[in-house]
Amino acid sequence: MFVGRPLHSDRMEGTLLPKRVALAVFCSDPISSVAYATEQILLVLAAGGLAALATAPWVALAVILLLVTVVASYRQTCYAYPNGGGAYVVSRENLGEAASLAAAAALLVDYVMTVAVSVTSGVVAVTSAIPALSPHAVIIAVGLILLLTVANLRGTRESGRVFAVPTYAFVGLTLLMFVWAGVQAFTGGLPEAVTAADPLPQPGQLTSLALLILVVRAFASGCTALTGVEAISNGVPSFERPKARNAATTLAMMGVIAVVLFGGITVLAVALHAQALPDGNPSVISQIAAAVFGGSSVVFYLFQAATAAILILAANTAFNGFPGLASILARDSYLPRQLHNRGDRLVFSNGVVLLAAAAAALIIGFDANIDRLIQLYIVGVFTSFTLSQFGMVKHWQTLLRRQRDPAVAQTEVAGIGGGSRRSMRRAQTINAIGAVFTAVVLVVVFATKVTHGAWIAVAAMIVLFLTMRAINRYYTRVTIEVAADDEELQTLPSRVHALVLVSRLHRPAMQALALARGMRPDGISAVTLAVDADETHLLRQEWESRGVPVQLTMLEAPYRDPIRPLINYVKDLRRANPRTVIMVFIPEYVVTHWWQQLLHNQSALRFKARLLFTPGVVVVSVPYHLGVGEEGWMGRRRREVEPETETM
Amino acid sequence: MFVGRPLHSDRMEGTLLPKRVALAVFCSDPISSVAYATEQILLVLAAGGLAALATAPWVALAVILLLVTVVASYRQTCYAYPNGGGAYVVSRENLGEAASLAAAAALLVDYVMTVAVSVTSGVVAVTSAIPALSPHAVIIAVGLILLLTVANLRGTRESGRVFAVPTYAFVGLTLLMFVWAGVQAFTGGLPEAVTAADPLPQPGQLTSLALLILVVRAFASGCTALTGVEAISNGVPSFERPKARNAATTLAMMGVIAVVLFGGITVLAVALHAQALPDGNPSVISQIAAAVFGGSSVVFYLFQAATAAILILAANTAFNGFPGLASILARDSYLPRQLHNRGDRLVFSNGVVLLAAAAAALIIGFDANIDRLIQLYIVGVFTSFTLSQFGMVKHWQTLLRRQRDPAVAQTEVAGIGGGSRRSMRRAQTINAIGAVFTAVVLVVVFATKVTHGAWIAVAAMIVLFLTMRAINRYYTRVTIEVAADDEELQTLPSRVHALVLVSRLHRPAMQALALARGMRPDGISAVTLAVDADETHLLRQEWESRGVPVQLTMLEAPYRDPIRPLINYVKDLRRANPRTVIMVFIPEYVVTHWWQQLLHNQSALRFKARLLFTPGVVVVSVPYHLGVGEEGWMGRRRREVEPETETM
Repeated sequence: MFVGRPLHSDRMEGTLLPKRVALAVFCSDPISSVAYATEQILLVLAAGGLAALATAPWVALAVILLLVTVVASYRQTCYAYPNGGGAYVVSRENLGEAASLAAAAALLVDYVMTVAVSVTSGVVAVTSAIPALSPHAVIIAVGLILLLTVANLRGTRESGRVFAVPTYAFVGLTLLMFVWAGVQAFTGGLPEAVTAADPLPQPGQLTSLALLILVVRAFASGCTALTGVEAISNGVPSFERPKARNAATTLAMMGVIAVVLFGGITVLAVALHAQALPDGNPSVISQIAAAVFGGSSVVFYLFQAATAAILILAANTAFNGFPGLASILARDSYLPRQLHNRGDRLVFSNGVVLLAAAAAALIIGFDANIDRLIQLYIVGVFTSFTLSQFGMVKHWQTLLRRQRDPAVAQTEVAGIGGGSRRSMRRAQTINAIGAVFTAVVLVVVFATKVTHGAWIAVAAMIVLFLTMRAINRYYTRVTIEVAADDEELQTLPSRVHALVLVSRLHRPAMQALALARGMRPDGISAVTLAVDADETHLLRQEWESRGVPVQLTMLEAPYRDPIRPLINYVKDLRRANPRTVIMVFIPEYVVTHWWQQLLHNQSALRFKARLLFTPGVVVVSVPYHLGVGEEGWMGRRRREVEPETETM
Repeated sequence: MFVGRPLHSDRMEGTLLPKRVALAVFCSDPISSVAYATEQILLVLAAGGLAALATAPWVALAVILLLVTVVASYRQTCYAYPNGGGAYVVSRENLGEAASLAAAAALLVDYVMTVAVSVTSGVVAVTSAIPALSPHAVIIAVGLILLLTVANLRGTRESGRVFAVPTYAFVGLTLLMFVWAGVQAFTGGLPEAVTAADPLPQPGQLTSLALLILVVRAFASGCTALTGVEAISNGVPSFERPKARNAATTLAMMGVIAVVLFGGITVLAVALHAQALPDGNPSVISQIAAAVFGGSSVVFYLFQAATAAILILAANTAFNGFPGLASILARDSYLPRQLHNRGDRLVFSNGVVLLAAAAAALIIGFDANIDRLIQLYIVGVFTSFTLSQFGMVKHWQTLLRRQRDPAVAQTEVAGIGGGSRRSMRRAQTINAIGAVFTAVVLVVVFATKVTHGAWIAVAAMIVLFLTMRAINRYYTRVTIEVAADDEELQTLPSRVHALVLVSRLHRPAMQALALARGMRPDGISAVTLAVDADETHLLRQEWESRGVPVQLTMLEAPYRDPIRPLINYVKDLRRANPRTVIMVFIPEYVVTHWWQQLLHNQSALRFKARLLFTPGVVVVSVPYHLGVGEEGWMGRRRREVEPETETM
C-alpha cells in the first residue's frame, strides 16, 4: 500500500541516473558532512583554549588535502571497476577473502552509522531552528528513518528525483551565505556568532605535546567530512553511459563542492568566533547562518530546512549502499540468501528494513546525541578506505605484470581498466598515496577514538566478520552435501508406500485415498487414530459395510496424542524397509473465512510439522475446498475399473 | 513439565471416586456457599433497618426449604441418568434442542461464575484474616486460578485427594464453632461481632410492600446457597459402583451438611449482631469466627484458612464440570471440535484453559469485588435448575406412558430409571415441585437482579445460545457437503500432473523429481522461476549438459515475486484440463538447528500457504534432511532402466 505497485524487472534499466541526479543521490552524504565536520574540529580544539582554536584552519586544510587525495584515489576505482568497485569487491579481487570480509564488515557498520549520524544531525538542524522540539529528538529521528524506509522500498528513481532539490538547495544557500558574509565583511559589518561571548576554557600554558595531541584528535574528528566518498565508486552501474566516466566526473564535482563548503564554513566559524556546544544544540553551522542571515529571517529558516533535508537524505546513500552490498554478500554466500532477492519494487527490501532497524536502535540507544554517536563513525570508514586503496594498488600491479607477459599482452591491452602503461602507473601512484594516507589516518582515528565509543563499532565489525565467515562455511558444507552426482539424476525411489490419514469416511478423506491409489504405490494403507473408541468403531463399521477398497489400519492412541503413534508406525514401516519412501496423505479442509478455521481441528498442521522432521517421510497435503460445491472435490469421474476415454 | 507425564486411557477407570472423596470434589461448591449466602441476605436486609433484619431467620428458612426441594429433585435425576444427567442432557432428551442449548448456555456461564465468585470469596477469607493483603486481591485471585488450572490439567484423581482435607476441615471447624458458641451461650458469655455496634440505616417506618420487596430480594440473594447442587448429577459416571445410588447418597449427605451449616451460621450471625459490609471485608462468617474463637487465636486463623481453601476448591467443581460439558457440546457439534479431545493427562485441556481465562477476565473486570460479581451468578443457576426439573417431569411422563403401552412394557419394566409405577409417580411429583419452585425463584431472581449486573450474564447466555446454534448449522452443512457417495469411494483422479519446483540442480530437487517420476503421472514438468537471470541461465545449461530426464520449464518472474507466476502457470494447466489434479512437489531443507533455518529461503512455506488456497492443487513437501549424510537422501539405489531385485 505504502510502497507502490510492483515494478517490472525491465524497468531496472529505467532507473539509471543522469549525473546531476546521481550527485544528489550519492553525494548528499559527503556534502552534508560539512554540516558537522567543522563543529567536530572546534569541539576538540576548544578544550585547549584560544591557542588551540587558532590551529583550526590548519586542521581543516589537512582534512581537505586528505579529501582531495581520497577523491583522486576513488576516481581510479571508478575507471577500473565499471561494474561497481566497492571496498568489498576491490579487496576480494586483489587482497583475498579475509580482507574483503573485513572491508564488508566495515562498510556495513559504516552504512548503519551514516544513517544514524546523518538523521540525528538533521534533527539537530531542526532543533537549532526550533528549540522547542529538542526534547522530542529521538521520536523525530526514528520517524524520519521510517519515512526513509518507506521511500526506499519504493525504489531508486523516485528517490533520486526527490533528493535533487534539497541537495542543490543546500549547496546554493551555503554559497549564498558565503557571498553575503563576504559583502558584510567588505562593508565592515561582519557579525558575531551567538556563542562568541561564551567563556572559553583557560587551560593555562599548553605543552607542545598536549597541543599536538589536541590537533591530531581534532583532525581525526574532522575526518567525518570524508564519510561517504566511496558511495559513487560503489554505484557506478547506476550511472548513465558512459558509466565510468560519468561516475568519475561526478566524484570530482562532489570533491570540489565538499572542499569549497567545508573550507568556507570553517573560515566563517573562525571569523565569527562560533563555538561548538557539547550537546550540539544550536549547531555551529546554524550559528553562522543565524549571524549572517539574521536569526529570525526567512532565509535562515530556509537554510536550516535545506541542511536538515540534505542530512536526512544523506542517510539515503546508505539506503542505496547497504542493501546492495548485503545482496552481493548474500550472493557470495556470506549473508543469508534472503538478502539477495530484490523485492516487488526492484529494491532489496530485506536489506532496507535491516538497515533501518539497526540505525533506529542506535539512535534510541544513544538518545539521539550526535557527539556520542559520531565517535563510532569513522573507524569503519577508514578501514574500508584503506583496504580499498591497497586493493587498487595491487590491482594495477597485477595488470602491469600481465601486460609484461607477452602471452596476454595482446588480449589485455584494451581490457578492463586498461590504457597505457603510463596512465596505469599514474593511477597506481595515486592509489598508493591514498592508501598510505588513509592507513595513517585509520591508526590515528582508532587510537584517539577507541575509548570514546569506537570500540562498539570495532566489536560490531569483528562479530560481523566472524558471522559472515561462519555463514559461508555453512553454505559451502550444504552445497557439497547436496551436490547431485550423475547417477542420482537418473534414480527413482526404490519403493513408495502411501499412507492416508483418515478420521471419517467423508469426501476429503476419500479424495486423499483416491489420489494415493491413483499413484499406484508399492504399498498403501489407510490409517486412523483411535482416540475416541466410539468414533473409531463407527468408522470401521462404515468402512467395511461400504466396501472401501483399501484396508483400514487402526492405530491405538492410548495417550490421546495422535501424533506419536503415527510417528511410531511410520518408523516401524521404515525399519522394516529402510529404503521405502513413505508418502503421508493428509486430507485438509480449506475454508473461506478465518473464523471457520477455528471450527476445524488444527491437527493437520501439527501432523505436518512433526512429520517434516521424520526422515524418509513425504507429506502430501490434499486440500478439500469447503463451500465451493463440486469444485471442492477434485479429480472425479474416472471410474477405477473402466477409464473413460473422454477425459483428456 | 508442570502437568505431569501423559496418562494412559486405561487409567480412566482408575480415576473413579469413592463417596467421601466425591463429596469433597463435587460438593465443595454448595457447602462453601454458606460462607457468603448468609452475608448476602444480611446485606440486602440491612437497608431496611432493624425491622427488616429481624426477618433474616425466616428468609434463611425459605432458602433451606428450597435447598431441600432441589436436592430431593436432583436425587431423582441421579437414578434416572446414571451416565450423567446434567441439565443439558436432561433438557435435550426431554425438551428438545432449544431448551437444551438454553440450559447449556446457562451452565457454561454458571461454571465461569462459580470460579470467579468462589475464588474471589476465598480471597476475602484471606484478607479478612490478613487485612494487609486487601490491595492485592486481584493478583492473588488470578494467581489462584492459575494454580487451579495447573492442578486440573494434571487430572481428577489427584485433585480429589488434595480437595478432601480442606472440605472436611471446613465442615468440622464450623461445627466446632457452633458447639463453642453454644457453650458460650450457656455460660452466658456469647460475644458480640466486631460490627455489632456499627450504626444501622434508619429508614423510618417501612411500608409492608417495601418490606416485602426487601425480603424477596434478600431471598433471591440467599439463593446463592444453592449454587453447585447440580454438580453431582452431572458427575454420576465418576462415582464408584453402584454409581447412581452412591451419587444420590452423596447428594443427600451434602444437603444435610449445607442445611446445618447455613442454618447455624445464620442463627449465629443474628445472635452476634454481625453486619454485612458493602465491600465484604471482613466477611460476616469471619466476624463470627473472630468473635467466637477470639480474633487472634490459632483456631480463628485455621478456620479462615479452611474457609479460603474450601472456597478456592469449590471453583474446582467448575473445573470438573465446564470442560466435561464443553466436550459433550463439542461432540454434539455445538462447540468447536477441539474442546472434545482429552489432553495428555485425560482431562479436557482446552476447556480447562478456556474456563480459567474467562473467570480471570471477570475477576479483573470486576476488580475482585464479591458483591458486584455475585449479582451475575444466580440467573444461570436457576435457568438450568428449572429446565432440568421440567425435563425430569417430562422424562417420568414418557416412561409412565411407555409402560402403559403393552408392547414395550415388558422390555422397559426393568429399564433405565425404571422401578415401580408408584415410585416413578413419586419421583415425578418431587421433580414437579422442584420445577415449580425453581421457576418461581428464577423469575424472582431475574426481576430483582437484572438491573444489578445480571444482564451481563443474560447477555452472555444469549450470545452463547446463538453461537452454539450457528456452529451446529455450520457443522451440519459441512457434514452434508463432505458426505461421500458410493461412487466416490471407488473413483480415482482423472489425470495427475506432477510439477516439481526446482531452483538448482542439487539433491533436494533431484529427490523431488525422482519421487514425482516414480509416481508415473500423466504429465510431469520441472519448473524454475527465473528471478535471477544469471542463476537461471546457469541452471538451464547444467540441466541440459547433464541430461536430466525431464524437460525444464522456466517461468518468467518479471516482478520477482516467484509465487504469482507459479499460481498463474498452475491455473493455466487447470484451465487446459479442468479435471487434472496438479501435484506440486516442493523440495525443502530440514535443518537440525533453528538458526540454520534463517539461512535458507522461507519460500517453501510461502509457496505452500498460497498453493493451499488454489483449487485442484495438492502440495507435496519433499524434505531433504541436512547434516545426516546419506540418510538425508531417500529412496536411492534403484536405477530407472534396470530395477534391482535386491531392494525389498
